[in-house]
Amino acid sequence: MSFDVLQDKIKAKKNPTVAGMDARVEHVPPSILKKHMDRHGQTLEAAAGAVLEFDKGLIDALADVVPAVKPQSAYFEMLGWRGMKALEEVVAYAKEKDLFVIADVKRGDIGTTAAAYSQAWLGTTQVGDASCPVFDADCVTLNGYMGSDSIKPFLNDCTQRDKCAFVLAKTSNPSSMELQDIVAGDRLVYTVMGDLIQRWGQGTEGKYHYQALGAVVGATHPSVLKELRYRLDKVFFLVPGYGAQGGTAADVRYAFDELGRGAVVNASRSIMCAWQKTGKDGADYQEAARAAAEQMRDEIRQYVQIL
Amino acid sequence: MSFDVLQDKIKAKKNPTVAGMDARVEHVPPSILKKHMDRHGQTLEAAAGAVLEFDKGLIDALADVVPAVKPQSAYFEMLGWRGMKALEEVVAYAKEKDLFVIADVKRGDIGTTAAAYSQAWLGTTQVGDASCPVFDADCVTLNGYMGSDSIKPFLNDCTQRDKCAFVLAKTSNPSSMELQDIVAGDRLVYTVMGDLIQRWGQGTEGKYHYQALGAVVGATHPSVLKELRYRLDKVFFLVPGYGAQGGTAADVRYAFDELGRGAVVNASRSIMCAWQKTGKDGADYQEAARAAAEQMRDEIRQYVQIL
Repeated sequence: MSFDVLQDKIKAKKNPTVAGMDARVEHVPPSILKKHMDRHGQTLEAAAGAVLEFDKGLIDALADVVPAVKPQSAYFEMLGWRGMKALEEVVAYAKEKDLFVIADVKRGDIGTTAAAYSQAWLGTTQVGDASCPVFDADCVTLNGYMGSDSIKPFLNDCTQRDKCAFVLAKTSNPSSMELQDIVAGDRLVYTVMGDLIQRWGQGTEGKYHYQALGAVVGATHPSVLKELRYRLDKVFFLVPGYGAQGGTAADVRYAFDELGRGAVVNASRSIMCAWQKTGKDGADYQEAARAAAEQMRDEIRQYVQIL
Repeated sequence: MSFDVLQDKIKAKKNPTVAGMDARVEHVPPSILKKHMDRHGQTLEAAAGAVLEFDKGLIDALADVVPAVKPQSAYFEMLGWRGMKALEEVVAYAKEKDLFVIADVKRGDIGTTAAAYSQAWLGTTQVGDASCPVFDADCVTLNGYMGSDSIKPFLNDCTQRDKCAFVLAKTSNPSSMELQDIVAGDRLVYTVMGDLIQRWGQGTEGKYHYQALGAVVGATHPSVLKELRYRLDKVFFLVPGYGAQGGTAADVRYAFDELGRGAVVNASRSIMCAWQKTGKDGADYQEAARAAAEQMRDEIRQYVQIL
């Protein structure tokens, strides 16, 4: 089971964090960007080349510190098909470096369309007699607003191909309350969603007793983390919102179980853009990212002991 | 305002429907698929080439019957970056033929990530001094589970670039009830979402009094269509679930206002796969698609008079 693989990697590196790959053009060190624009002009081709080189450099710098990376599809889609080609290469490169790859796509659709999304991100696409892998990440993020019809095709690929998925429960952003905190009987909408996630995942438990379907719960709501950790004891958590959005190590400790397992905390900008704070114009982007990732790891380890 | 453009096209063709471009490899007529596999083998490249040729042929056949097409991103993503390249070409080709293009992507994310998605699908991406259009559809579908943070960046592009968007309210699939029909005070979750959609769109009314933010409401729930049409009087509806999923012309009439405006009904498989029912092995796929689209138009026109 794929969360077993993630938990094993977390244990090996004593680091329950994931580095987001969310680079826009303006996050790429100027020298890298210039090189690609000199070659291809002010084009999406140049931008995609620059982002790819930057992401690969980050992966090189982080590969022995973090267990996982999380490329965010939006920043590749905004570069068109060239961006999606770069995303395929980022996923492949990270896997080559033995990193666990969470494709942050937050897809949600039904029936054969959900199956197509699952083929794209976790499975394979059949062409004649050939089964072609596509983006082939280890894990994907999903939106469950449409119900189990939008989740089941992914669960099939999870069990058949040793993959896993996180479904949005309570997100880290301020306006998450508009729908997610609405009172529904004796629960809130995000609790309803959390209960659905645990129910949908039944029967897919791995060696650490977590199911193949996890939940996204934001670092900015520590009381919710505590409540949902207790309520959803078989659901692995992806915790965004650390750092730039305000979540601290003291906040995220509630995401973990008593053995320090069952959660992974994401940081994107604080790692990726660490070079912008050292005054070296990006020449040290790898060292800066690595130092930021080590600092985050050490902060969280003050509160969480991973057994 | 972009729903004005859509409504004008609907009026001109007297046809309030949109043709889904949802082709998997197995929906492409065998002769087209064979041609591309002979050239490129059993690869994603062959599949993307075949789907692109098929979609362009459908667009040619449908361009003077339907006002709009709706490519579904999942079926292009499952072919990797080559699929996304085909999708860019499908959008451009449909616009060239003066069709309104709804990119069915159901994206939902927050802050700068939502902005990146909006740049990808409705806006432009800045590279140096150049503003590069990416997929550049007229309209997009969204998932609002994360609240207004996931919608506002799109609304900016809607107002600045004359675009529009549909947000999921009550979807056509059986398991939509699992979350969307939960009782929340004196409303259901989908009504809460519908009210949010109307509130988020305030101030973006066009000449037909519809706002730039529409809602997805499935054809399979006629009583919900009736209820939401009355409640959300400024919200344009995209109505999936016609045909294959069970929605009929008698059902979808409730999506329209008293002037026969404010809604567009989608059909995908019944048009795209019409050739599979004529026994000609796909040689007549264009005529078959066109006939199916005309039939759907005529069925709906028995119930809806467009003024």
